[in-house]
Amino acid sequence: MYLPADFEQTDATQIAALILAAPLATLVSHAGDALRADHIPLIMTKTKLIGHIAHANDLHRKLEDGAAVLAIFSGANAYITPNSYPSKADTHEVVPTWNYEVAHVHGTIMFHHDRKAKLGAVGLLTKMMETRTNGGDAWRMSDAPADYLNDKLDGIVGFEILIMQVLAKSKLSQNKSDADRLGAAHTLGDHPIAGRMQNLHSK
Amino acid sequence: MYLPADFEQTDATQIAALILAAPLATLVSHAGDALRADHIPLIMTKTKLIGHIAHANDLHRKLEDGAAVLAIFSGANAYITPNSYPSKADTHEVVPTWNYEVAHVHGTIMFHHDRKAKLGAVGLLTKMMETRTNGGDAWRMSDAPADYLNDKLDGIVGFEILIMQVLAKSKLSQNKSDADRLGAAHTLGDHPIAGRMQNLHSK
Repeated sequence: MYLPADFEQTDATQIAALILAAPLATLVSHAGDALRADHIPLIMTKTKLIGHIAHANDLHRKLEDGAAVLAIFSGANAYITPNSYPSKADTHEVVPTWNYEVAHVHGTIMFHHDRKAKLGAVGLLTKMMETRTNGGDAWRMSDAPADYLNDKLDGIVGFEILIMQVLAKSKLSQNKSDADRLGAAHTLGDHPIAGRMQNLHSK
Repeated sequence: MYLPADFEQTDATQIAALILAAPLATLVSHAGDALRADHIPLIMTKTKLIGHIAHANDLHRKLEDGAAVLAIFSGANAYITPNSYPSKADTHEVVPTWNYEVAHVHGTIMFHHDRKAKLGAVGLLTKMMETRTNGGDAWRMSDAPADYLNDKLDGIVGFEILIMQVLAKSKLSQNKSDADRLGAAHTLGDHPIAGRMQNLHSK
Protein backbone atom coordinates (compact mmCIF):
# COMPACT_ATOMS: atom_id res chain seq x y z
CA MET A 1 0.00 0.00 0.00
CA TYR A 2 1.10 3.54 -0.69
CA LEU A 3 2.04 4.77 2.77
CA PRO A 4 3.42 8.32 3.07
CA ALA A 5 5.04 9.03 6.46
CA ASP A 6 2.33 11.55 7.40
CA PHE A 7 -0.29 8.84 7.32
CA GLU A 8 1.53 5.78 8.61
CA GLN A 9 -0.12 4.42 11.74
CA THR A 10 2.50 2.79 13.94
CA ASP A 11 0.67 2.78 17.28
CA ALA A 12 -0.04 -0.90 17.98
CA THR A 13 -2.82 0.03 20.40
CA GLN A 14 -4.66 2.05 17.76
CA ILE A 15 -4.18 -0.66 15.15
CA ALA A 16 -5.56 -3.29 17.54
CA ALA A 17 -8.51 -1.02 18.34
CA LEU A 18 -9.33 -0.60 14.64
CA ILE A 19 -9.27 -4.38 14.12
CA LEU A 20 -11.41 -5.00 17.22
CA ALA A 21 -13.94 -2.41 16.07
CA ALA A 22 -14.18 -3.72 12.49
CA PRO A 23 -13.52 -7.49 12.61
CA LEU A 24 -14.96 -8.30 9.16
CA ALA A 25 -11.72 -8.64 7.20
CA THR A 26 -11.26 -8.68 3.47
CA LEU A 27 -9.04 -11.75 3.17
CA VAL A 28 -7.05 -11.43 -0.04
CA SER A 29 -5.24 -14.33 -1.66
CA HIS A 30 -3.78 -15.36 -4.99
CA ALA A 31 -5.25 -18.75 -5.73
CA GLY A 32 -4.45 -20.61 -8.91
CA ASP A 33 -3.17 -17.43 -10.58
CA ALA A 34 -6.35 -15.45 -9.81
CA LEU A 35 -6.81 -12.67 -7.28
CA ARG A 36 -9.46 -13.52 -4.78
CA ALA A 37 -11.01 -11.99 -1.68
CA ASP A 38 -13.28 -13.49 0.95
CA HIS A 39 -15.01 -11.53 3.70
CA ILE A 40 -14.47 -13.16 7.06
CA PRO A 41 -14.54 -11.93 10.68
CA LEU A 42 -11.14 -12.45 12.30
CA ILE A 43 -9.74 -12.19 15.82
CA MET A 44 -6.17 -10.99 16.29
CA THR A 45 -3.83 -12.28 18.97
CA LYS A 46 -0.21 -11.13 19.37
CA THR A 47 1.03 -13.53 16.70
CA LYS A 48 -2.00 -14.74 14.76
CA LEU A 49 -5.33 -14.03 13.16
CA ILE A 50 -7.94 -16.69 13.87
CA GLY A 51 -11.03 -17.41 11.78
CA HIS A 52 -13.23 -20.00 10.13
CA ILE A 53 -14.97 -20.50 6.80
CA ALA A 54 -17.73 -22.73 5.50
CA HIS A 55 -16.46 -26.14 4.42
CA ALA A 56 -18.21 -25.44 1.10
CA ASN A 57 -15.94 -22.40 0.62
CA ASP A 58 -13.20 -23.73 -1.66
CA LEU A 59 -10.60 -21.38 -0.18
CA HIS A 60 -9.22 -24.25 1.93
CA ARG A 61 -8.83 -26.36 -1.19
CA LYS A 62 -7.36 -23.59 -3.36
CA LEU A 63 -4.72 -22.42 -0.88
CA GLU A 64 -1.97 -24.66 0.42
CA ASP A 65 -0.92 -24.38 4.04
CA GLY A 66 1.70 -21.64 4.19
CA ALA A 67 0.21 -19.61 1.35
CA ALA A 68 0.60 -15.84 1.62
CA VAL A 69 -2.58 -13.92 2.42
CA LEU A 70 -3.42 -10.31 3.20
CA ALA A 71 -6.18 -9.49 5.71
CA ILE A 72 -7.51 -5.95 5.37
CA PHE A 73 -9.47 -4.27 8.15
CA SER A 74 -11.27 -1.04 7.31
CA GLY A 75 -12.26 1.78 9.60
CA ALA A 76 -14.39 4.72 8.55
CA ASN A 77 -13.82 6.73 5.37
CA ALA A 78 -15.11 10.04 4.02
CA TYR A 79 -14.77 12.39 1.09
CA ILE A 80 -13.20 15.71 2.11
CA THR A 81 -14.48 18.69 0.16
CA PRO A 82 -12.16 21.69 -0.39
CA ASN A 83 -15.08 23.86 0.78
CA SER A 84 -14.44 22.67 4.34
CA TYR A 85 -10.93 24.17 4.56
CA PRO A 86 -10.80 27.69 6.04
CA SER A 87 -7.65 28.32 3.96
CA LYS A 88 -9.73 28.03 0.78
CA ALA A 89 -10.91 31.60 1.29
CA ASP A 90 -7.30 32.85 1.45
CA THR A 91 -5.48 31.08 -1.36
CA HIS A 92 -7.95 28.76 -3.13
CA GLU A 93 -5.00 26.35 -3.23
CA VAL A 94 -7.03 23.33 -2.18
CA VAL A 95 -8.24 20.13 -3.83
CA PRO A 96 -10.50 17.30 -2.66
CA THR A 97 -9.17 14.20 -0.92
CA TRP A 98 -10.46 11.09 0.81
CA ASN A 99 -9.73 10.23 4.44
CA TYR A 100 -9.77 6.66 5.75
CA GLU A 101 -8.20 4.24 8.20
CA VAL A 102 -7.09 0.71 7.32
CA ALA A 103 -4.88 -2.02 8.73
CA HIS A 104 -3.15 -4.53 6.45
CA VAL A 105 -2.01 -7.78 8.06
CA HIS A 106 0.27 -9.89 5.87
CA GLY A 107 0.82 -13.50 6.85
CA THR A 108 0.67 -17.16 5.96
CA ILE A 109 -2.46 -19.27 6.35
CA MET A 110 -2.88 -22.72 7.83
CA PHE A 111 -6.22 -24.55 7.86
CA HIS A 112 -7.47 -26.71 10.71
CA HIS A 113 -9.94 -29.55 10.31
CA ASP A 114 -9.90 -30.92 13.84
CA ARG A 115 -12.89 -30.31 16.08
CA LYS A 116 -10.88 -28.68 18.86
CA ALA A 117 -9.40 -25.97 16.61
CA LYS A 118 -12.77 -25.28 14.98
CA LEU A 119 -14.52 -25.03 18.35
CA GLY A 120 -11.76 -22.69 19.52
CA ALA A 121 -12.14 -20.43 16.49
CA VAL A 122 -15.92 -20.05 16.71
CA GLY A 123 -15.79 -19.87 20.50
CA LEU A 124 -13.41 -16.89 20.54
CA LEU A 125 -15.43 -14.96 17.98
CA THR A 126 -18.77 -15.78 19.59
CA LYS A 127 -17.58 -14.72 23.03
CA MET A 128 -16.20 -11.42 21.76
CA MET A 129 -19.21 -10.49 19.67
CA GLU A 130 -21.88 -11.72 22.08
CA THR A 131 -20.33 -9.91 25.04
CA ARG A 132 -20.22 -6.76 22.94
CA THR A 133 -23.73 -7.17 21.55
CA ASN A 134 -25.70 -8.65 24.41
CA GLY A 135 -23.60 -8.20 27.56
CA GLY A 136 -25.11 -10.27 30.35
CA ASP A 137 -27.60 -11.83 27.92
CA ALA A 138 -24.84 -13.18 25.68
CA TRP A 139 -25.82 -16.20 23.59
CA ARG A 140 -23.59 -19.19 24.31
CA MET A 141 -22.81 -22.09 22.02
CA SER A 142 -24.05 -24.38 24.77
CA ASP A 143 -27.51 -22.79 24.29
CA ALA A 144 -27.81 -24.77 21.03
CA PRO A 145 -28.58 -28.54 21.02
CA ALA A 146 -25.34 -30.59 20.98
CA ASP A 147 -26.22 -32.54 17.81
CA TYR A 148 -27.06 -29.33 15.97
CA LEU A 149 -23.78 -27.73 17.06
CA ASN A 150 -21.81 -30.77 15.96
CA ASP A 151 -23.42 -30.61 12.52
CA LYS A 152 -22.51 -26.93 12.33
CA LEU A 153 -18.89 -27.67 13.30
CA ASP A 154 -18.76 -30.35 10.59
CA GLY A 155 -19.76 -27.63 8.15
CA ILE A 156 -16.80 -25.34 8.80
CA VAL A 157 -13.01 -25.27 8.53
CA GLY A 158 -10.86 -23.35 11.01
CA PHE A 159 -7.73 -21.43 10.10
CA GLU A 160 -4.93 -19.35 11.55
CA ILE A 161 -2.84 -16.72 9.84
CA LEU A 162 0.66 -16.38 11.20
CA ILE A 163 1.33 -12.64 11.19
CA MET A 164 4.43 -11.60 9.19
CA GLN A 165 3.87 -7.84 8.83
CA VAL A 166 1.31 -5.24 9.87
CA LEU A 167 0.97 -1.98 7.93
CA ALA A 168 -1.63 0.58 8.88
CA LYS A 169 -2.69 3.92 7.47
CA SER A 170 -4.65 6.63 9.26
CA LYS A 171 -5.31 9.26 6.62
CA LEU A 172 -6.87 11.98 8.77
CA SER A 173 -5.68 15.28 7.25
CA GLN A 174 -2.44 15.23 9.30
CA ASN A 175 -0.77 16.93 6.31
CA LYS A 176 -3.03 19.94 6.70
CA SER A 177 -2.90 22.88 9.09
CA ASP A 178 -4.79 22.41 12.35
CA ALA A 179 -7.39 24.89 11.15
CA ASP A 180 -8.04 23.05 7.88
CA ARG A 181 -8.08 19.64 9.57
CA LEU A 182 -10.55 20.80 12.21
CA GLY A 183 -12.63 22.61 9.60
CA ALA A 184 -12.89 19.41 7.57
CA ALA A 185 -13.83 17.44 10.70
CA HIS A 186 -16.48 20.00 11.59
CA THR A 187 -18.03 19.78 8.12
CA LEU A 188 -18.34 15.99 8.54
CA GLY A 189 -20.57 16.48 11.60
CA ASP A 190 -21.19 13.22 13.45
CA HIS A 191 -19.44 11.05 10.83
CA PRO A 192 -17.35 8.48 12.71
CA ILE A 193 -14.11 9.67 11.11
CA ALA A 194 -14.64 13.26 12.30
CA GLY A 195 -13.76 12.42 15.91
CA ARG A 196 -10.61 10.66 14.75
CA MET A 197 -9.58 13.78 12.83
CA GLN A 198 -10.31 16.05 15.79
CA ASN A 199 -8.39 14.08 18.38
CA LEU A 200 -5.22 13.69 16.39
CA HIS A 201 -2.29 16.07 16.55
CA SER A 202 -1.23 17.23 13.11
CA LYS A 203 2.19 16.10 12.11
CA MET B 1 -15.13 -15.20 -3.31
CA TYR B 2 -17.33 -17.85 -1.76
CA LEU B 3 -20.70 -17.08 -3.31
CA PRO B 4 -23.64 -19.35 -2.39
CA ALA B 5 -26.68 -18.90 -4.65
CA ASP B 6 -28.78 -17.47 -1.77
CA PHE B 7 -26.44 -14.51 -1.48
CA GLU B 8 -25.38 -13.82 -5.06
CA GLN B 9 -26.35 -10.33 -6.12
CA THR B 10 -27.03 -10.28 -9.85
CA ASP B 11 -29.08 -7.09 -10.11
CA ALA B 12 -26.84 -4.67 -12.03
CA THR B 13 -28.81 -1.69 -10.70
CA GLN B 14 -28.21 -2.71 -7.11
CA ILE B 15 -24.53 -3.40 -7.77
CA ALA B 16 -24.12 0.01 -9.40
CA ALA B 17 -25.90 1.63 -6.44
CA LEU B 18 -23.55 -0.03 -3.95
CA ILE B 19 -20.50 1.19 -5.90
CA LEU B 20 -21.90 4.72 -6.18
CA ALA B 21 -22.64 4.82 -2.46
CA ALA B 22 -19.21 3.51 -1.42
CA PRO B 23 -16.69 4.66 -4.04
CA LEU B 24 -13.55 4.08 -1.95
CA ALA B 25 -12.38 0.80 -3.46
CA THR B 26 -9.85 -1.63 -2.08
CA LEU B 27 -7.73 -2.12 -5.19
CA VAL B 28 -6.01 -5.48 -4.92
CA SER B 29 -3.06 -6.49 -7.06
CA HIS B 30 -0.24 -8.99 -7.13
CA ALA B 31 2.89 -6.96 -7.69
CA GLY B 32 6.30 -8.54 -7.83
CA ASP B 33 5.03 -11.71 -6.17
CA ALA B 34 3.49 -9.86 -3.21
CA LEU B 35 -0.18 -9.24 -2.47
CA ARG B 36 -0.95 -5.57 -2.28
CA ALA B 37 -3.98 -3.35 -1.77
CA ASP B 38 -4.42 0.38 -2.26
CA HIS B 39 -7.48 2.36 -1.22
CA ILE B 40 -8.70 4.53 -4.06
CA PRO B 41 -12.05 6.12 -4.97
CA LEU B 42 -13.25 4.83 -8.33
CA ILE B 43 -16.02 5.70 -10.75
CA MET B 44 -17.68 2.93 -12.75
CA THR B 45 -18.90 3.30 -16.31
CA LYS B 46 -20.45 0.46 -18.33
CA THR B 47 -17.08 -0.94 -19.30
CA LYS B 48 -14.47 0.62 -17.02
CA LEU B 49 -13.46 1.81 -13.60
CA ILE B 50 -11.72 5.18 -13.63
CA GLY B 51 -9.35 6.50 -10.96
CA HIS B 52 -6.08 8.20 -10.16
CA ILE B 53 -3.20 7.79 -7.74
CA ALA B 54 -0.35 9.94 -6.50
CA HIS B 55 2.65 9.81 -8.81
CA ALA B 56 4.67 8.92 -5.69
CA ASN B 57 2.52 5.77 -5.32
CA ASP B 58 4.69 3.08 -6.90
CA LEU B 59 1.65 1.08 -8.04
CA HIS B 60 2.07 2.47 -11.56
CA ARG B 61 5.67 1.30 -11.59
CA LYS B 62 4.99 -2.12 -10.05
CA LEU B 63 2.11 -3.08 -12.36
CA GLU B 64 2.46 -3.39 -16.09
CA ASP B 65 -0.37 -2.22 -18.31
CA GLY B 66 -2.76 -5.14 -18.64
CA ALA B 67 -2.07 -6.50 -15.15
CA ALA B 68 -5.00 -8.20 -13.43
CA VAL B 69 -6.52 -6.27 -10.53
CA LEU B 70 -9.53 -6.71 -8.27
CA ALA B 71 -11.47 -3.67 -7.05
CA ILE B 72 -13.60 -4.37 -3.99
CA PHE B 73 -16.45 -2.09 -2.97
CA SER B 74 -17.94 -2.62 0.48
CA GLY B 75 -21.41 -1.78 1.71
CA ALA B 76 -22.51 -2.04 5.33
CA ASN B 77 -21.83 -5.09 7.51
CA ALA B 78 -23.10 -6.28 10.87
CA TYR B 79 -22.81 -9.15 13.31
CA ILE B 80 -26.09 -11.06 13.64
CA THR B 81 -26.72 -12.48 17.10
CA PRO B 82 -28.79 -15.68 17.44
CA ASN B 83 -30.77 -13.85 20.13
CA SER B 84 -32.43 -11.80 17.40
CA TYR B 85 -34.12 -14.81 15.73
CA PRO B 86 -37.68 -15.52 16.97
CA SER B 87 -37.10 -19.20 16.10
CA LYS B 88 -34.46 -19.39 18.82
CA ALA B 89 -37.21 -19.72 21.43
CA ASP B 90 -38.66 -22.72 19.57
CA THR B 91 -35.70 -24.89 18.61
CA HIS B 92 -32.52 -23.16 19.79
CA GLU B 93 -31.10 -24.34 16.46
CA VAL B 94 -29.41 -21.04 15.67
CA VAL B 95 -25.83 -19.80 15.44
CA PRO B 96 -24.30 -16.36 14.86
CA THR B 97 -23.45 -15.04 11.42
CA TRP B 98 -22.24 -11.85 9.75
CA ASN B 99 -24.23 -9.97 7.11
CA TYR B 100 -22.57 -7.74 4.51
CA GLU B 101 -22.72 -6.47 0.94
CA VAL B 102 -19.75 -6.31 -1.40
CA ALA B 103 -19.05 -5.96 -5.11
CA HIS B 104 -15.91 -7.44 -6.67
CA VAL B 105 -14.85 -6.01 -10.02
CA HIS B 106 -12.12 -8.00 -11.78
CA GLY B 107 -10.30 -6.36 -14.64
CA THR B 108 -7.05 -5.24 -16.19
CA ILE B 109 -5.42 -1.92 -15.41
CA MET B 110 -3.90 0.64 -17.74
CA PHE B 111 -2.17 3.79 -16.52
CA HIS B 112 -2.42 7.19 -18.17
CA HIS B 113 0.20 9.90 -17.89
CA ASP B 114 -1.27 12.43 -20.31
CA ARG B 115 -2.86 15.58 -18.94
CA LYS B 116 -6.20 15.03 -20.67
CA ALA B 117 -6.77 11.61 -19.14
CA LYS B 118 -5.71 12.81 -15.69
CA LEU B 119 -7.97 15.84 -15.89
CA GLY B 120 -10.81 13.57 -16.99
CA ALA B 121 -10.30 11.20 -14.06
CA VAL B 122 -10.23 13.86 -11.36
CA GLY B 123 -12.96 15.84 -13.07
CA LEU B 124 -15.44 12.93 -13.04
CA LEU B 125 -14.79 12.13 -9.39
CA THR B 126 -14.88 15.77 -8.31
CA LYS B 127 -18.14 16.42 -10.09
CA MET B 128 -19.82 13.35 -8.59
CA MET B 129 -18.65 13.94 -5.03
CA GLU B 130 -19.08 17.72 -5.00
CA THR B 131 -22.61 17.53 -6.39
CA ARG B 132 -23.45 14.97 -3.73
CA THR B 133 -21.74 16.87 -0.91
CA ASN B 134 -22.38 20.50 -1.71
CA GLY B 135 -25.15 20.60 -4.32
CA GLY B 136 -25.39 24.10 -5.74
CA ASP B 137 -22.27 25.15 -3.81
CA ALA B 138 -20.13 22.48 -5.46
CA TRP B 139 -16.41 23.24 -5.53
CA ARG B 140 -15.07 23.29 -9.07
CA MET B 141 -11.54 22.62 -10.22
CA SER B 142 -11.62 26.02 -11.90
CA ASP B 143 -11.95 27.55 -8.39
CA ALA B 144 -8.26 26.77 -7.84
CA PRO B 145 -5.46 28.84 -9.42
CA ALA B 146 -4.39 27.36 -12.79
CA ASP B 147 -0.71 27.02 -11.84
CA TYR B 148 -1.61 25.25 -8.61
CA LEU B 149 -3.94 22.87 -10.44
CA ASN B 150 -1.28 22.08 -13.04
CA ASP B 151 1.18 21.23 -10.26
CA LYS B 152 -1.42 18.96 -8.71
CA LEU B 153 -2.04 17.23 -12.05
CA ASP B 154 1.71 16.71 -12.44
CA GLY B 155 1.60 14.90 -9.09
CA ILE B 156 -0.88 12.21 -10.13
CA VAL B 157 -1.24 9.33 -12.56
CA GLY B 158 -4.60 8.39 -14.08
CA PHE B 159 -5.75 4.85 -14.74
CA GLU B 160 -8.58 2.81 -16.15
CA ILE B 161 -9.57 -0.73 -15.30
CA LEU B 162 -11.22 -2.62 -18.15
CA ILE B 163 -13.98 -4.65 -16.49
CA MET B 164 -13.75 -8.40 -17.12
CA GLN B 165 -16.11 -9.77 -14.45
CA VAL B 166 -18.35 -8.42 -11.72
CA LEU B 167 -19.30 -10.61 -8.75
CA ALA B 168 -21.44 -9.27 -5.94
CA LYS B 169 -22.72 -10.69 -2.69
CA SER B 170 -25.62 -9.40 -0.62
CA LYS B 171 -25.62 -11.51 2.52
CA LEU B 172 -28.81 -10.29 4.13
CA SER B 173 -30.30 -13.36 5.88
CA GLN B 174 -32.09 -14.50 2.71
CA ASN B 175 -31.47 -18.09 3.87
CA LYS B 176 -33.61 -17.49 6.96
CA SER B 177 -37.38 -17.46 7.43
CA ASP B 178 -39.01 -14.06 6.97
CA ALA B 179 -39.64 -13.91 10.73
CA ASP B 180 -35.98 -14.52 11.61
CA ARG B 181 -34.69 -12.15 8.94
CA LEU B 182 -37.02 -9.36 10.08
CA GLY B 183 -36.25 -10.09 13.74
CA ALA B 184 -32.54 -9.74 13.03
CA ALA B 185 -33.16 -6.49 11.14
CA HIS B 186 -35.27 -5.14 14.01
CA THR B 187 -32.50 -5.90 16.51
CA LEU B 188 -30.05 -3.88 14.40
CA GLY B 189 -32.20 -0.77 14.82
CA ASP B 190 -31.05 2.06 12.55
CA HIS B 191 -27.92 0.24 11.33
CA PRO B 192 -27.65 0.86 7.57
CA ILE B 193 -27.84 -2.84 6.75
CA ALA B 194 -31.15 -3.27 8.61
CA GLY B 195 -33.15 -1.51 5.89
CA ARG B 196 -31.50 -3.69 3.25
CA MET B 197 -32.54 -6.81 5.17
CA GLN B 198 -36.10 -5.55 5.62
CA ASN B 199 -36.73 -4.64 2.01
CA LEU B 200 -35.50 -7.87 0.49
CA HIS B 201 -37.70 -10.84 -0.28
CA SER B 202 -36.34 -14.02 1.27
CA LYS B 203 -35.31 -16.64 -1.25
